[in-house]
Parts: sequence; C-alpha cells; structure tokens
Amino acid sequence: MKLWDKGFTVDKKIENFTIGKDRILDIYIAKHDMLASKAQANMLAKVGLLSDEENEQLQKGLDQLLLDLENGNFEIDEHFEDVHSKIESELIKLTGDAGKKIHVARSRNDQVLVALQLFQKEYLEDVTNKVLELVNIMLKKAEEHKNDLLPGYTHFQAAMPNSFGMWFTAYAENLLSDLAFFKAAYHVADQNPLGSGAGFGTSFPIDRLQTTKELGFSELAVSSVGAQMLRGKTEKAVASALAMISGTLSKLSYDLVMYNSQDLGFVKLPNEMTTGSSIMPHKKNPDVFELTRAHCNRIQGVPNDIALIINNLPSGYHRDFQILKEVLFEPMMQFVDILDILIFALPQLEIKSGYMDQEKYDGIYTVENINYLIQNGTAFRDAYKEVGLSVEDGSYVPHKEFKTSHIGSIHNLGIDLIQDKVKRFKLVEDK
Amino acid sequence: MKLWDKGFTVDKKIENFTIGKDRILDIYIAKHDMLASKAQANMLAKVGLLSDEENEQLQKGLDQLLLDLENGNFEIDEHFEDVHSKIESELIKLTGDAGKKIHVARSRNDQVLVALQLFQKEYLEDVTNKVLELVNIMLKKAEEHKNDLLPGYTHFQAAMPNSFGMWFTAYAENLLSDLAFFKAAYHVADQNPLGSGAGFGTSFPIDRLQTTKELGFSELAVSSVGAQMLRGKTEKAVASALAMISGTLSKLSYDLVMYNSQDLGFVKLPNEMTTGSSIMPHKKNPDVFELTRAHCNRIQGVPNDIALIINNLPSGYHRDFQILKEVLFEPMMQFVDILDILIFALPQLEIKSGYMDQEKYDGIYTVENINYLIQNGTAFRDAYKEVGLSVEDGSYVPHKEFKTSHIGSIHNLGIDLIQDKVKRFKLVEDK
Amino acid sequence: MKLWDKGFTVDKKIENFTIGKDRILDIYIAKHDMLASKAQANMLAKVGLLSDEENEQLQKGLDQLLLDLENGNFEIDEHFEDVHSKIESELIKLTGDAGKKIHVARSRNDQVLVALQLFQKEYLEDVTNKVLELVNIMLKKAEEHKNDLLPGYTHFQAAMPNSFGMWFTAYAENLLSDLAFFKAAYHVADQNPLGSGAGFGTSFPIDRLQTTKELGFSELAVSSVGAQMLRGKTEKAVASALAMISGTLSKLSYDLVMYNSQDLGFVKLPNEMTTGSSIMPHKKNPDVFELTRAHCNRIQGVPNDIALIINNLPSGYHRDFQILKEVLFEPMMQFVDILDILIFALPQLEIKSGYMDQEKYDGIYTVENINYLIQNGTAFRDAYKEVGLSVEDGSYVPHKEFKTSHIGSIHNLGIDLIQDKVKRFKLVEDK
Amino acid sequence: MKLWDKGFTVDKKIENFTIGKDRILDIYIAKHDMLASKAQANMLAKVGLLSDEENEQLQKGLDQLLLDLENGNFEIDEHFEDVHSKIESELIKLTGDAGKKIHVARSRNDQVLVALQLFQKEYLEDVTNKVLELVNIMLKKAEEHKNDLLPGYTHFQAAMPNSFGMWFTAYAENLLSDLAFFKAAYHVADQNPLGSGAGFGTSFPIDRLQTTKELGFSELAVSSVGAQMLRGKTEKAVASALAMISGTLSKLSYDLVMYNSQDLGFVKLPNEMTTGSSIMPHKKNPDVFELTRAHCNRIQGVPNDIALIINNLPSGYHRDFQILKEVLFEPMMQFVDILDILIFALPQLEIKSGYMDQEKYDGIYTVENINYLIQNGTAFRDAYKEVGLSVEDGSYVPHKEFKTSHIGSIHNLGIDLIQDKVKRFKLVEDK
Repeated sequence: MKLWDKGFTVDKKIENFTIGKDRILDIYIAKHDMLASKAQANMLAKVGLLSDEENEQLQKGLDQLLLDLENGNFEIDEHFEDVHSKIESELIKLTGDAGKKIHVARSRNDQVLVALQLFQKEYLEDVTNKVLELVNIMLKKAEEHKNDLLPGYTHFQAAMPNSFGMWFTAYAENLLSDLAFFKAAYHVADQNPLGSGAGFGTSFPIDRLQTTKELGFSELAVSSVGAQMLRGKTEKAVASALAMISGTLSKLSYDLVMYNSQDLGFVKLPNEMTTGSSIMPHKKNPDVFELTRAHCNRIQGVPNDIALIINNLPSGYHRDFQILKEVLFEPMMQFVDILDILIFALPQLEIKSGYMDQEKYDGIYTVENINYLIQNGTAFRDAYKEVGLSVEDGSYVPHKEFKTSHIGSIHNLGIDLIQDKVKRFKLVEDK
Repeated sequence: MKLWDKGFTVDKKIENFTIGKDRILDIYIAKHDMLASKAQANMLAKVGLLSDEENEQLQKGLDQLLLDLENGNFEIDEHFEDVHSKIESELIKLTGDAGKKIHVARSRNDQVLVALQLFQKEYLEDVTNKVLELVNIMLKKAEEHKNDLLPGYTHFQAAMPNSFGMWFTAYAENLLSDLAFFKAAYHVADQNPLGSGAGFGTSFPIDRLQTTKELGFSELAVSSVGAQMLRGKTEKAVASALAMISGTLSKLSYDLVMYNSQDLGFVKLPNEMTTGSSIMPHKKNPDVFELTRAHCNRIQGVPNDIALIINNLPSGYHRDFQILKEVLFEPMMQFVDILDILIFALPQLEIKSGYMDQEKYDGIYTVENINYLIQNGTAFRDAYKEVGLSVEDGSYVPHKEFKTSHIGSIHNLGIDLIQDKVKRFKLVEDK
Repeated sequence: MKLWDKGFTVDKKIENFTIGKDRILDIYIAKHDMLASKAQANMLAKVGLLSDEENEQLQKGLDQLLLDLENGNFEIDEHFEDVHSKIESELIKLTGDAGKKIHVARSRNDQVLVALQLFQKEYLEDVTNKVLELVNIMLKKAEEHKNDLLPGYTHFQAAMPNSFGMWFTAYAENLLSDLAFFKAAYHVADQNPLGSGAGFGTSFPIDRLQTTKELGFSELAVSSVGAQMLRGKTEKAVASALAMISGTLSKLSYDLVMYNSQDLGFVKLPNEMTTGSSIMPHKKNPDVFELTRAHCNRIQGVPNDIALIINNLPSGYHRDFQILKEVLFEPMMQFVDILDILIFALPQLEIKSGYMDQEKYDGIYTVENINYLIQNGTAFRDAYKEVGLSVEDGSYVPHKEFKTSHIGSIHNLGIDLIQDKVKRFKLVEDK
Repeated sequence: MKLWDKGFTVDKKIENFTIGKDRILDIYIAKHDMLASKAQANMLAKVGLLSDEENEQLQKGLDQLLLDLENGNFEIDEHFEDVHSKIESELIKLTGDAGKKIHVARSRNDQVLVALQLFQKEYLEDVTNKVLELVNIMLKKAEEHKNDLLPGYTHFQAAMPNSFGMWFTAYAENLLSDLAFFKAAYHVADQNPLGSGAGFGTSFPIDRLQTTKELGFSELAVSSVGAQMLRGKTEKAVASALAMISGTLSKLSYDLVMYNSQDLGFVKLPNEMTTGSSIMPHKKNPDVFELTRAHCNRIQGVPNDIALIINNLPSGYHRDFQILKEVLFEPMMQFVDILDILIFALPQLEIKSGYMDQEKYDGIYTVENINYLIQNGTAFRDAYKEVGLSVEDGSYVPHKEFKTSHIGSIHNLGIDLIQDKVKRFKLVEDK
C-alpha cells in the first residue's frame, strides 16, 4: 500500500476532501467569529429580531466560549466540519432557543467573511508592531556600526566604499516603505461585510452601521455584492503585503549568507544561527538565514497562488474560496516566526574587522581618487583617465581618506530623519 | 533562414541584446530625466559645484529639450543606447562645457532611478483619475438600473434576487478599495533617490533636500543603499497595484461575457464591443470584454514576473534591473487602454428585460418565501422545511414581492455612502 | 496571547524553524532511504569498504526497518531531526559498528537526493496509472453518451452542436497528451545521484554504476556537481507535470460546475458531490467539483513557488532546498485525492435530456443550415447571407438533421484511435 | 498630453485593442499558414470539395506566396487584421474563385491552431539543435579544463575541491536532462488539429488523416473538442519547456557573474561580454551574463503568465487565447538570442589561475585529510575530531594531494557517458 492510499472509503475521502483543513485552521478565526456573533446579537436585539433576554443569554454564552478559547478549552472536534458549526452548537447547548436564533438575517457567507476580516486586521496590527521593532533594532545597529566600512557592490563587483551604517538604515527604511502595503491591506480588511448575507443582502431590517461600529471597522462594505467580493481579495491583499516585506527580508538574508562566506567574511553570525557540517569541520553554514530566505521567497509566491485560484471566477461566492485559508494561514504564521527570529538574531550580529585592508578592495576607492582630483581642479574626463591608467599600470594608490557630508551618506546617515518616518507611520489614517 | 535568425553578426547581436528595448521604452521617461536634470543643476549651482551661468545655460538647454519632446521633435536615434546618453549629448551640443558638468555628483544609477520614480508617480496620478472616472460612471449606472433585477449567483447557481444597482455599486466600491494599493505604490514611488549615486552616495557636498523639494517628492529616500533598493521595488509596487485593480476588472469582464450569453442574456453589449462569427450568423461574440479580461489577467502576472527577476539578488545594483522597463511599461500602457475602453463602454451597456420571469429562476425567491413565513411567526427550521417540500413536490409559488431596507441591499443601495468614500479618497495623505 | 505566539523560547523556535516539517514529511521518503542504504551497503561491500559480514548485518537491519515501516511501527520521534538520522540511529542499535560505517563515502546531500528521486519515481508511476484509469473511464463514458448532444460553446456563446462523446474524448485525449510531461518529469527523476556526495564526489573508490543498477535507475547522473543540481530541478519537473494535468482537470471541473447550473442544466452530479444550502432549499451546489477545480488551480502555482525559492541560487547545495518538501509533498497528495474522487465520480455522472430543444439553442444549427445550402449548390457567401437574414427576420428554421463523417466528429468519435494512443503510452522508452 | 494618450478616437482605440500585436507577430506563422493551406487544398481536392484545377491554382498561388515570404516581399499591411485574412485576400487576387473556396470545411479556429502547432514544432526543432550545440561546447570545455580546480561551494561556503571539468559537465548534463521537457512540448505540438473547425468538427466529409500525413504530424488530435483545447495548452507546454532550460542557464549565468567578482576571481569573461563603469575605472561588469540571467528568469515566468490567462476558462474557444502570441513569441525569440550569445561566449571563457592557493580555501581539503586518515585505519569519528581540532588550533595542514576514481568525480569525469546520452537523445521517439 502506498502512503498516499490511506485506506479511506470514497465517502470518507469526499468528506475529508470537502472539509479540508478547516478543523485545524479555523481555530485562528474562532475568537473573531465569537466577537462578530456578539455584535450580531446586539444588533438583532436593537432592531427587535431578538428579545433583550435572548440577547443577554447569547452574550453570556459567547463570553463563556471566549473564556474557554482563551483557556485552551475550546476545540473543533471531528463531529463538526468547521468552527462556525461548533460555536453554534455550543451556543445552543448553553442557551437553548436563543442559540437557534443567532443565525437569523445572517448567512454562512457573511459570517465567515466577517471573522476573516477581523482576524486579518488583528494579524496585521500585531505584525506591524513586530516589523517596527525590527526597524528600530536596525536603526540602533546602524548607529553602532556607522564606522564599520564594507565594500559596496554593484554587478557583484566591489565598487565603492559602503558602511554597515548605510546597510542597516537601508533595510530599516525599506521595511518602513513596505509597510505602505500593510496599510493598504489593512484598509481592505477594515471594511465590515456583516449583513451582506449570501452576497445579496436580506429582507430583514438589520442595522449594518451598528455592527460596523461595535466591531471597530473603519468602513462599512456597503454593497452586499461588493462585500462578498472581498472574499479572496482581502486574502490577496494581505498576501501581497507580506510578499512585499518578504522580498526585503529575503534580500537581507541573502546579503548575510554571502557576508558569512570565506570569500567575503564581513560578519560573524550568531552561533544559534549556524550549523556545522557532518563531514567538513571547517564550515559554518548559515542555515537559519538560508531558511528565512527560502521562506520569504516562498511567501512571495502566495499572491500568485491566490490569483490562480480566484481568477476568472465571476462575481458571487464559490466554494473555491474555502481553500484560501490553507493557502494563506500557514505562510502568515511562518512570517511571524521569521520576524521573531530576525528580532532575536540581528542584535547579536557581529561585524568582523580587517577585511577592508585586502588589496582586492583597493579598487573601490577609485571614485574617491577621481573626486579628489576633480576637487583639486582636474576635469572629470582627465581625472578618470589618469586614475584608470594608474589602475592599469599598477601604480594606483587608493585614496582611502574621504569624507561625505550629504544626507544618507557614510558620514551622515540621517538616522533621525528615518526615526521621524517611524514616528509618522500609522496603520490607519485619522479620518 | 529562420525568422529568429536575423542575420546579425554576434557583435551586433550582443549590442542589441544589451541595449534591449531601451530606445523604444526610454521615451516614457525622457521628460522625467530632463526635469530631474534641471533640479540637479539647480542644486549643483546652489552648493557651488556649478556656476550660476552654467546653470542658466543648462536650464535653458533642458527647457529647449522639454519643448522638443512636447512637440514630438525628440527621438532616441540609434547612435545612442538610451535616453540618458541622448539627453546628455544634446545638452553638450546646446551648452558646451556646462553640459559636461551635469553629471558631477550623479551616477547613472540614481539618474535612471529618479526618472523612473517621477514617471511612475505621474502615471499613478493619471490612472487614479481614470479609475475614479470609472467609479463615478458605475455609480451613475447603479442609480439608473437600481430597479433592474437579475439572479444572484453563488456556486454558479441562481441563488437569490440581485440587482444591477447592487452589481454596479459592488464594482465601484471594490475599485475604490483597490485604490489603497495605488496609494501604497505611490508612497513607494514618492521617495527621492537622487544623490544616492551608484548606491553608496558621493563625497561631493550635495543637498538632497533641495532636489526632493524641487521635484515634488514627499520624502527623501535617506539611505543611499536603501534608495537604490527601490529599483525593482517600485516597479513591483506599481505592478502589484495594477494587479489588484486588474483582478476586479477581469471579474467585471467575466460577468459581462457570461451575461451576454444566450443562456443568461441579461445584457446587450455595445455594438463596437462585439464581433460576428465568420461561419455562425447567430452569434454576437463579446470579443472586447474577452480581451479586457485576458489583458487584466496577464497584468496580474507582472508582479510575479518582476519577483522572478529581482528575487535572490543581494543588495546593490545589477544589470538585471534594466529589463524591468520592458516587463512593466507595456502592461502599464495596456492598462490605460483597458480603462479608456471601459469608460467608453459602460455608459452604453444596456440591460435587457424579461429574463427574470423564466421559470428556472423561480427558486431564487425561496429565501423570500422563508423570510415571509418567519416574519409571520413560523420558526426558521419549520419554514425552511415547508418551502423545501413545496419545491420538491412542485407546489412551490415564489414570493416575488419583497422589500429590503438595510444599507447595501436592493432597495437601499447606499450610493451616497460610496460617493462619500470617493470624496474622501486621497492618493497622498496630508502630512 | 496571540495564537501565533506559541510561547516557545527563542532557542526552541529556531530549532523548530530549522527542522520545519521534516518529521512529518520525511515519512514519505523513509522507504526510499532504506532501499538506497541497502544498495549503498552492497556496493561498499563490493568495493571492499565494508566486510561481507558487516554488509549482511546492514541488509538484515534495513530489512527489519522496512518491515517496521510497512507495519506502521516506524516513527520519527522528536529526538530526531529527520528520517535519515532516525534510520542511522536505529541501524546502529541493530548492528553496532556496521551501522556506523554505512555513511562512509556518502554525504547527507546525496543520501537525501537519492531518496527523493526514488520517491518521486514511484509516485509518478502510481499516479500515471490513476490517470490512465481515468482516461479509460472517459472513453467508456464517451461511447455511452455519443448520442447525447449539447451546445458547443465559443466565447461563452452557444455556437454549434457538440456531443458528450466529443466532450469525454476531448478530456481523455488531453490527459494522454499531458502525460508527456509525466514522462519528462520521470526522466529527470530517473537519474541516480548516489555517490555525488556533497556535490563534488569523493575520493573513496565507489562504484556508481552498481547502485544505479540495483536501484533501478535508467541513468546515472554522471557529474557530481550536476547530480546535486537535480535538487530542486526534479521537484520543479514533477510540479510542472502535475500542473499540466491539473490545468486539464480544472477545466473539466469548471465545465461540470457550469453544466450543473439552472441556466445550462446538462448534467446531474452525483449526490455525494453536491451540497444543499442552509438557507436556499432549491440549490444543489457542486462543491466537490469547485474544490477539485480550486485544488487543481492551486497545484498549477507550485512550479512557480518552487522557481521563486530556487531561482538565482548559484550551483551547489543551499539549505533553501529543504523547504521544497513542504511545498511539493502536500500538493502531490492532494493530487492523488483529486484523481481518486474523479475516478469515483465520473462513472456516476448523469446526462440530462430535453435541454437541446430550447429555442435559445436553435442558432447553433446555422452552420448546418449553411452547409446544407452549400452542399446543394449555393455559394458559401450567399448561403451565409440567406441564413443570416432568416435569423434576423425570425423566419429561421434550424436544420437539426445532420451527419458528420470525419474522424473526431460527433458521428465518428475515433475512440479506437485514442485507445491505440493509450496502448502506446510508456512512461519510459525502451533503450 | 500624456504619452499614454495617443490621441486616437475610441473607435480606433477599440480596433487597435482587438487587433493587438497580430500584425507584427503573425509574420512568424505566415509560412505555416501557407503550408497548412496547401495541405488543406490537397485534401479538399482528394475528397471532391475542390476540383483538381482549383487545387492546382491554389497550390501555385500558395507557392508564390511562400516565395514572396522567403524573399521578404510579404507584409501584413494595415488593411488586414491578421496574417490569415491577408493570405486569403492575396490568394483570391491570384486565383479568383478558387481562393474563395479554400476556407470550406475550415474555421478560423483550426486554421490558426494548425499554423501555431507547425510553428512551435519548427521552433522546438531548431532550438533543440542550438541546445545540443551548447552541450557539445560544454563537454569540450570540460575536457579542456578538467585539471582546473575551483572551490566547491555549499551554503555559499567553500566546502570541497571542485573542478571546471565537473562544472562544465554538470551544465551539459542538466541541459540534456531538461530537453526531456522539449520532447514533451514537442509531443503536444505534434498533433494535428486541422479539421476540428471551430472546435466541434464539420459535416463536410474531410479526411483528417491525409492532412496529418502531409503536414508531418506524428499524431492526429482526434477529438474536435480536444483539438481546440490544445490552444493555450501547447503554448503553455512550450513555455514550460523553455522555463526548464532557462532555469539551468540562469544558474550558469549567476555562477559566472560571481566567478567574475574580485572576491572569487575564477574566470575572465570575454571582453565583448563585460562593460566598464562610467565612474569606476577598476570595474569589469559582467552585464551580458546579468542580462542572460535576467531574461532567463523572466522566461521562467511565462508558464504562469499563460496559466493566469487560460485558467478557469471552460472548454471551447475564447478570444483570450489571442494574446498568448504576444505573451509567448517575444520570450521565444529572446531565448534564441540567449542561446546564440552563450554559444559565442562559452568557448572564449578563460579560467584564471592561482586562486586555489589562497589560505581562505585551505579548509576545503579537510574532507581529504579525514579520508586520508580513514584510509590509514582511523575511525571516521576520530578522524573528524582530529582534523576539526587542528583547524581550531591553527595546526591544520591541508591534504591537497588526492585522487578520485569514481565516475563523475574530478579525475574521472565520465564525458564519454554524457556524450553517449547526447547521441541517444531524440526529439521524437520512433514508433
């Protein structure tokens, strides 16, 4: 028997296939379904579709479930296909008839979607804080290593003097810039779809502004049809935002993997981050950074994975949307791990010394030689020729003394300006 | 001889290969290179690296070139590998020695990048306006067709009553929501990289805040290393923004292609938008909407195309970035065409009549039947069973009279709320 | 506490991060590692690097482990980071010093790679058989439903008469055509990398042709550097092959989802494959086919996911390759489920009747009207005009009687020719 | 006026939009349309749908057009929307009534598709030859440089001795392995769709085996519905094949770009392949290899671009397929350029000397030190410890003398085995 033939009957296979990973993944949105149900019940009571007493029962029941969840006593066992049926069932156990009425004027479609929106909002808030923490670490390291030069590369060629100060501020600033995509994704998630029903509204007289306010959404997703079109779109928005930052962190990891090589040798990676070889005692493999790179690269594929699934589906709900949870949630969690690891690793990163004195890097000062000549009156073309000839005939002496003054250069990193950008960053603009 | 063997010598082949499509595509950034050169010259004069006289000559020369460009008299002939060498050459022709000094304290890397940033900013501004125009058209159509019902589909199954009012507001609101990604891309493009040189700054005492201000950038890309990391990132940001809107417009096109079928038959597409068949006189093929769909789907692949090129390149400039122009510019232009065509087409879209009376759509009112029973005191479970049985035994009579009241439902579209969102939209937040 | 903060210490986090999903996923390659170890030991004995006695012990030990695995008594507990260390440890328990020698002249790199190659070969063989089973089912259904017409669509427009016979043969033949990619992937997997060590060979006098033969590889991956370059490439090859077939099965699912709609209504899906709605008793949602479609679409993204990870890595092993297991194995298993479900579902698919008589489909016979006129002497242009006018003025009478004769047309499906293709298919060509 | 507002009227815009790049790109398939038309006419004459005289006229007319094309006298001017209407018009000019009959029993759909299939077949044949030429160059270089060692890298760490002999054979063998995907794509393209009409066959008594034979197709695409499903699929197959080889050539380029750095310095790239810097006279930028890398990476995105366009379209022709020409043809041509450039460049690649003596590479011999101890009786664990300690305390002396014997190792490259693989390669298997 092959491992992929698990011996299930076809019926069971189909059941497993349709349930998919819901039981595992829905735990992430359990809290948000409970909170949205509370808001829904309050609203239903307000417009008279529930009695105050029923609502009180439901509020108590849902608070109990929230407590159970917090305490680890809430589990989606295999009698339930997803978290929503589990919660409804528990609620009926706790409240009887009131529990049966929570679903009035709500459809599974808007119920799931509102929980997903809330979950993604909370995630983005939390992850934004981690990114900002990383940015601050980088700015601190930049200050610390502002005098540590390294060769600046273009075309993989050692080109000009660079510094770890500039290198750290570069990543800090790029992460900040990337956060614009978190903001965009947050904007998409920050719209309330509750009340859109199966995507075409309901004839019950619900009050959607009330749930919008109680759930803390900045906007109501007005059109019921449009609200349902957020399914897939929000996931793609979050994935695109993660992809943008992952691109930056992948590059950072790539740099560090190379800087750790015997050929460059600019940094010493934290011991916890490297691995020895089973047959080569001289090696210090940068495994952790290779894995952050690989996972960041993998995350960059998620927006496309989502596009392939949702693309060319006309408007309206399709069951296809269900598998977006498994496509997105795992990378979301992986992304948190990556941030935590980098937050732990970067403060420990050590910069080596001595490597700049190697003859192979003498050439990176040619620009300084040329600039020196220019500043002393030689025309650029002539200065370039003079220095070029000296490189060729071996008489070249690098002009290692130089001083930059402009913002964003080695001797004027402009850290305060970047810190100011950090301070100005807001996930949601004030209205 | 094969078509792909164009008979070039290898030397010529290599030259063509390295130049690529620069001569064709650079025309898009000619203006921006000229404007950035003006700002650069002004700044160089301010810090004393150019005399006022030299600067004046350069300003005049560049104004002349801008005028030539505006009048269609500027062309990148084949003596030049790109627009930048062409402009420099023309400038030297016009100003002599002054022209030779414009490149002081600037590198090709920051020169290209600043032009790209300015170009992408202008593009986003212009395209945002077109998107907003489309949104307004949709809101107008929504109002116009608020009483035109159509079946609402889920799982491709006619499910519940929908209206063209909800359908149009859905797309209007989703486009607005997507604009958050335009804003994010704009934020990335709205950072001044000028002065970052080859990516490691310069020892000349340049004033980067001055060029930032003169060129209208909201922010300075502070770190020189970080500024260069915008190459590829801005392109990816713009591509991601276009991809987001393209996803929405692809869905719209898909809907219309289906609504145009004999099986659904909800709309009559404008004549200019359909094509007959060479062998089937009964057909009205929705070719234009198939092509907007196809191009929108193709555009959705661009962020990934870019990722494949720039991914796993360590920090610093690589020649690989050059081909991003051809990867991005053509889809950018295609996207403008799509918007123009939809802006032209949508006002002409006609909604047919009569299709709702078909028996096959009777089932979409079951929810209304059930709600009616509930509102008259039947419990949900019982109502569901009663209606279900009537469907099965053929006695079902659809409850076609219904009235919705909540925001975002058929009888309360909430167009004013969406218009308010339109008004609140800003590409750049006030500081 | 957030769900994504699992309360681990950083050390534990890093350990978990580096181990990743190896413990779960390595079970798939346990058998293949054991078999490759047997071949390795036999070879080492042959060239004198193991004594015959040691080899005998190892063969017995590995047979024992294979038996344990078969019986479900082999588990990668958390003392081990992967299956390879687990097997080695068990072997040392069972054989003492002999177990310590199995790794002579082998590196973890070629050990893992050979197991992956064997696993992927076995998988492709097994899945090919399932695909062929599906092809045969389709051919049987084609014969069965050769007289069941349906409208043939182009541009989503009902265009010409089609038949379920042609529809089923279409998918059968396309699947067969897709199998060319299975063959290509199999060719890539069917090369023995064992003996390439860490990617640069070994100075031990091993016999690579011996292990190639014993393990049943068609080819030796000769160059040690090249052999290691198969890591990632084989995975991408397998993913590309799955993507190709998934594209076909996604389209099949899409067709069925639409054919199940009230608007088309050509088929009745098996009951196990559809789901009712919680609020709409008239609906029969085609959930299972939406999910096969979604998963097939998701699988189509895997080659790109892999490319994003392995692209722009220079030659030589990188830890990044490790995560390919999680990127590929899950979709591989999902693909098996999809095949099993379709093999179960398709034989039960019912074709409805009566739908062809609807007036909306009259137009699909215009080509037959025109052909009839041509065959009776009218020129094509005139015939087209005549029929076109009759459509316009409402006098059109569809010519529903027609008879096709060419291979691959409604009345001559050519099933025997396709069956012949099935017979000729071989996963490996004879040398 | 913006560059993207080209001042066209909307009508003209829509016309341009629907025609797209057909006029430019169709020139690639002009020959194949003519050849297929010849086969079609011959067949029509055979089955009596054309008179022999008419056929003779058509054959002459098409031969004339083929000659015009060969001589560069065939152009798709702007009175025609594509090559097919142009050819038909020319044919009518040349043959009168006969020309009007060529389209009997053919639809635009199968006409375009058969031309695409023939074009893609010819392309694959031609490009396969270029790949094999490159493989042979590599094998020659491998022999030439079999004694040129370089450090072998894993994790970007210099790990063990490698040789340019192994490096060149690695790429040669991997390219050969990749050709399995060319074979697969060729198999897909090598099926005759002619006669499938618009996708549902025709009631004319055509002979599809006749055209299959005359056009040199190995197989008939039997099912008319299935034949049309090749549209998009063949393009994706060709794109996947190019992507596979592009992955290999991208890696090769990446290696060379790095080997050209001052830090590694293993190779000297041909002068035509490098570029100086405008401000840094010491640099030799490997631009051409960066561009081959970038284009190879871009090509790797094409299968996904195609998938995004064709995915989730039900069976039957859609106008969306039209834009696949622009998505695929340009990368196809780019790929030819890349091969031509590498065929020119690789023979000139020079291997430097002396770099292996650098102390930083001493560690790569630790495996040899350990193996030496083992071969002299020390147990592996003890040998590993001994060498590891010597590395740590600085007493380590690299064991640079070693001799490998196994196939695929430094001193036994197995080039003859790889040459044998080259000889055995066939794009189509004998039946």
